[in-house]
Amino acid sequence: MAKKPADPKGGSLTTRIKERDARTRNRIVDLADAVAEKALAMREPKIEIPIRAKSNTIWNKKQRVLQMGQATSERELFNLNQAKQFMQTCLHASSIKDLIGAEKTLSLRGMFYKGLHTVAGTKEKTFTDQDESDGILEDLEVSLGALREELHIFAKKKGTMIGNITIIDSGDEIDCRRMGSGGYAIPSIVEPDVIQFKKCDAKFVLHVEKDTVWGRFNEDKFWQKHNCILTEGGGQPSRGVRRLLQRLNTELNLPIYCLLDCDPWGHYIFSVIKQGSISLAFESNRLAIPEAKFIGVRSKDYKECGLTDDVQIALNDNDTKRAKEIAAYPWFAEHKGWQKEIDLMLKNGFKMEVESLITKDISYVTEEYVPQRLKAKDWLE
Amino acid sequence: MAKKPADPKGGSLTTRIKERDARTRNRIVDLADAVAEKALAMREPKIEIPIRAKSNTIWNKKQRVLQMGQATSERELFNLNQAKQFMQTCLHASSIKDLIGAEKTLSLRGMFYKGLHTVAGTKEKTFTDQDESDGILEDLEVSLGALREELHIFAKKKGTMIGNITIIDSGDEIDCRRMGSGGYAIPSIVEPDVIQFKKCDAKFVLHVEKDTVWGRFNEDKFWQKHNCILTEGGGQPSRGVRRLLQRLNTELNLPIYCLLDCDPWGHYIFSVIKQGSISLAFESNRLAIPEAKFIGVRSKDYKECGLTDDVQIALNDNDTKRAKEIAAYPWFAEHKGWQKEIDLMLKNGFKMEVESLITKDISYVTEEYVPQRLKAKDWLE
Repeated sequence: MAKKPADPKGGSLTTRIKERDARTRNRIVDLADAVAEKALAMREPKIEIPIRAKSNTIWNKKQRVLQMGQATSERELFNLNQAKQFMQTCLHASSIKDLIGAEKTLSLRGMFYKGLHTVAGTKEKTFTDQDESDGILEDLEVSLGALREELHIFAKKKGTMIGNITIIDSGDEIDCRRMGSGGYAIPSIVEPDVIQFKKCDAKFVLHVEKDTVWGRFNEDKFWQKHNCILTEGGGQPSRGVRRLLQRLNTELNLPIYCLLDCDPWGHYIFSVIKQGSISLAFESNRLAIPEAKFIGVRSKDYKECGLTDDVQIALNDNDTKRAKEIAAYPWFAEHKGWQKEIDLMLKNGFKMEVESLITKDISYVTEEYVPQRLKAKDWLE
Repeated sequence: MAKKPADPKGGSLTTRIKERDARTRNRIVDLADAVAEKALAMREPKIEIPIRAKSNTIWNKKQRVLQMGQATSERELFNLNQAKQFMQTCLHASSIKDLIGAEKTLSLRGMFYKGLHTVAGTKEKTFTDQDESDGILEDLEVSLGALREELHIFAKKKGTMIGNITIIDSGDEIDCRRMGSGGYAIPSIVEPDVIQFKKCDAKFVLHVEKDTVWGRFNEDKFWQKHNCILTEGGGQPSRGVRRLLQRLNTELNLPIYCLLDCDPWGHYIFSVIKQGSISLAFESNRLAIPEAKFIGVRSKDYKECGLTDDVQIALNDNDTKRAKEIAAYPWFAEHKGWQKEIDLMLKNGFKMEVESLITKDISYVTEEYVPQRLKAKDWLE
């Protein structure tokens, strides 16, 4: 299960990092000890791995997040189908111990290379490709109850932030009010030991899907006029972006408003931000934001905003199928507003992008659309 | 042809922007006047567009950059095959005039939507898709002799920067020495009216292909230890990243060292950074960096660094084909070092990624590989 990050205010930063690393290392040692003990007792070495699949994903209605269930599978050394994975798991666990010892982090690609070699006495490689390596790392996250960040592993960077907040990143004070047209690039690891919130005047966060839309909002000084923070995730936001949004929501009590496309992909992005995803259900407590709000674009906007048929992008078969699947997600199924929203999109027969609001006026989205919706509290939860 | 940007030191910023915008607007008006004049004289309205294709690309051996030739094609109103493009060109030219008047910028996607409508009296749309719109905008760049940025149009943001430099972005002072683990996100428009260099202590720029490699260098404080600037372009660098590198090279006299994969894609990225590309040959004077240096990864590194066969990724037929094409580029063809480099890669039969150096040690690339190559001046030009 996802472990609660250390309270950013308790103890010195270095002490907390050391404690966290010691904790992770101990868990790796425990895992290794359990394997060794069994082997020495002439019993079969095996590792228990929680199952990351839809079948083991639970919708926690009270907390309004997806969670991982209790089912586990065993990974045995003396099982022809599992021996390789067993070896890979031990190999990566050992690499992580090295990383913690060296006080360094490594990318997912780097981990693949670090673990890659020819198995002694054979012509077989330890890993076929990076996908295999990535999967083992997710297994280790859940087995060790430690997050990827705690395992000293980072992913591709994605997304940017600007607005009324000053943060500390790795000891550097960064004033997000003075980040020009480029903005602050959100790193992959945004845990409290890396990033601390120093001074926040903002009253809410506006999260947009694409950086080009973000550019429009930044150029129109939306975050100054409306006293907020502006983030973008470059499509489906990375774990780093989701975690940062969740920290802004839970630690600073900032509402998170999402401006996404009116299409199944936009709805899915919202679903992941709000409730978490199946593959990362074990991380939901750290990533999901049950209070996130979907401010648009809405199916009703076509009529309500007086858009022309230029903005219509016809739904294809796959869109329709995805829309129905998403409508059946428990958290959408029980929500009348979302049922109406998806129904109307299907009835319309078309999707719409945020950029399509430009057909009204270049700054319609920043000067009229979002301000009106915020004022009228017109959003989907 | 690419116009030289205004001297960042001459005149006030606002004055220079106004002058630049006035210049661009005048060119649009001239274009429109020429069309109107012909129409009023009962002659066929047409626009002359320089040809952006390999056939009209010249390798300027003296300047060591790709340039656009003199060939043009005509776009006529009364030509069934050209009438639509003629209309699209006028439509976008008019939108750009609006943008300049409103002092706003718009994304490529936004331009598509801005120009999109149903042609009066028909069921036909002005644009079929964004590709069509993007192409017309490139045509306008070359016809008007004004860069995309001068047309107030921006693209997706890509790439990050950190290091011993302080810049001003849209009036905000940004100290790239204090940008934490995330870094400064390089915007799409980095012209002198948006970004000015305030204080630079760095002695060179290390440009890496991927942000995960950039993360390794940043974590190891490479830019502090070696007094440099560290940039990444997320694969093939955007125009914004290339332009920023070129400005760092020409205005601050910083050498640009590139650390890219040892594969045809890495070689192509280098070629584009150094000499420009065919599709943007009209921009080479503003984007190409003939002095850029390729510091690695090199084919010889397999033996020289004592790597194991784990790092080998077999070349496929397409790789081999691309490698031979690149070897035949005039600027590679006349360069013995590059011929040897590509020959050895083909002889090796495999490519190697920068990340593969991790098989030696996590920080081998930052602590040994790059410092040694810099010291020995061991690179390809």
